[in-house]
Amino acid sequence: MDEIRPILTVDVVLFTIRGSDLCVALQRRDREPFAGRPALIGGYVHVDEDADTLATAGRVLRDKAGLAGLFLEQLATFSGPGRDPRGWSASVAYYALVPEARLAPVLERGSEIVPVEAIPPLPFDHERIVAAGVRRLRNKGAWSSLPAFLLPEHFTLPQLREIYEVVLGMALNDSAFRRKIDELQVIEPVAGAFSRASDRPARLYRLRQEALQEFNRMV
Amino acid sequence: MDEIRPILTVDVVLFTIRGSDLCVALQRRDREPFAGRPALIGGYVHVDEDADTLATAGRVLRDKAGLAGLFLEQLATFSGPGRDPRGWSASVAYYALVPEARLAPVLERGSEIVPVEAIPPLPFDHERIVAAGVRRLRNKGAWSSLPAFLLPEHFTLPQLREIYEVVLGMALNDSAFRRKIDELQVIEPVAGAFSRASDRPARLYRLRQEALQEFNRMV
Repeated sequence: MDEIRPILTVDVVLFTIRGSDLCVALQRRDREPFAGRPALIGGYVHVDEDADTLATAGRVLRDKAGLAGLFLEQLATFSGPGRDPRGWSASVAYYALVPEARLAPVLERGSEIVPVEAIPPLPFDHERIVAAGVRRLRNKGAWSSLPAFLLPEHFTLPQLREIYEVVLGMALNDSAFRRKIDELQVIEPVAGAFSRASDRPARLYRLRQEALQEFNRMV
Repeated sequence: MDEIRPILTVDVVLFTIRGSDLCVALQRRDREPFAGRPALIGGYVHVDEDADTLATAGRVLRDKAGLAGLFLEQLATFSGPGRDPRGWSASVAYYALVPEARLAPVLERGSEIVPVEAIPPLPFDHERIVAAGVRRLRNKGAWSSLPAFLLPEHFTLPQLREIYEVVLGMALNDSAFRRKIDELQVIEPVAGAFSRASDRPARLYRLRQEALQEFNRMV
């Protein structure tokens, strides 16, 4: 009985922000089951090349989305006899954050970027995995530097606040937000760098090295 | 290549509190690899009977520790080619909380209860799994009703504070603790019930039904 092994896959909830929408990348499946249906980006664990399931997630993102160097964290493992028609399966789910400016290779490989409020019916238990990803992002986003991984390397404080507002799904008081960001000590000004996108030049910031290292990153 | 399937197991970090020590149950392995070595309680996923890996964890706890109806939550999945000499493997790790008063069947089945500060070298990556469990428990314990699952059904406020102190690893101010517990709204007095363990009778409390339902429980 020990020798009937379940299927082991990895699925990635790839989050980005477009305008004021928190979005997920969905890719049409190129094989059965559910060929042609949009689903999360994922794949089998390859025992001959993957160092662990985090490496599987990294490989899948490189091969199927053209992305590397993202924030990537394990979400949870979803399992059971009914989620995949091929048999008893477990999928180790990850979520990743990609700034909108880096979406080109994702779109080139045929992914759609869909607001989390408008996700179509998905195969397997991918809707459940997306919902778990949104919950995790909202919980973590409230007290960590995590939403900043959705921004380009340099950003203004108003841009940062907007990203937090989208992730948390609520408007934030600007001075309370600035106090919170000060407390977290996760960003630093970029010496001499200003954004000229609005009327007044706005100072540009970046994540501090310590904040970057606090998190799992793709190899 | 898709058909070389990894090994899929479940391991459970079974926490309890003895005196003022946060402890974990370790069981000597009854088969290779690492036969005779103390390790976490775990086992293979049985695709013919388990509804998911949570059900595997429940079955393993029933069969190997004589326990049911505990707080049980998924921790993370640990994986790779090197953690198990039988080949590329993934273990979905759970943690469970058991009150000391319910340890008899665990001890009868040959488990040892070991303080987390005195864990011996463990096979596989079980030390890493225990460390992840301790981190999760300490993080969650700070703001949830979770530590109360380490107590008998009825408990006094001083008993509850002691459990929080052990879980968090620090002394707590009594009135600040009571305010925090009030805020959480997770316990309620048991009508007319008092403990006579100390000089003055102390009111007995229990977890509210809503607090119980908030968490995964074993079926």
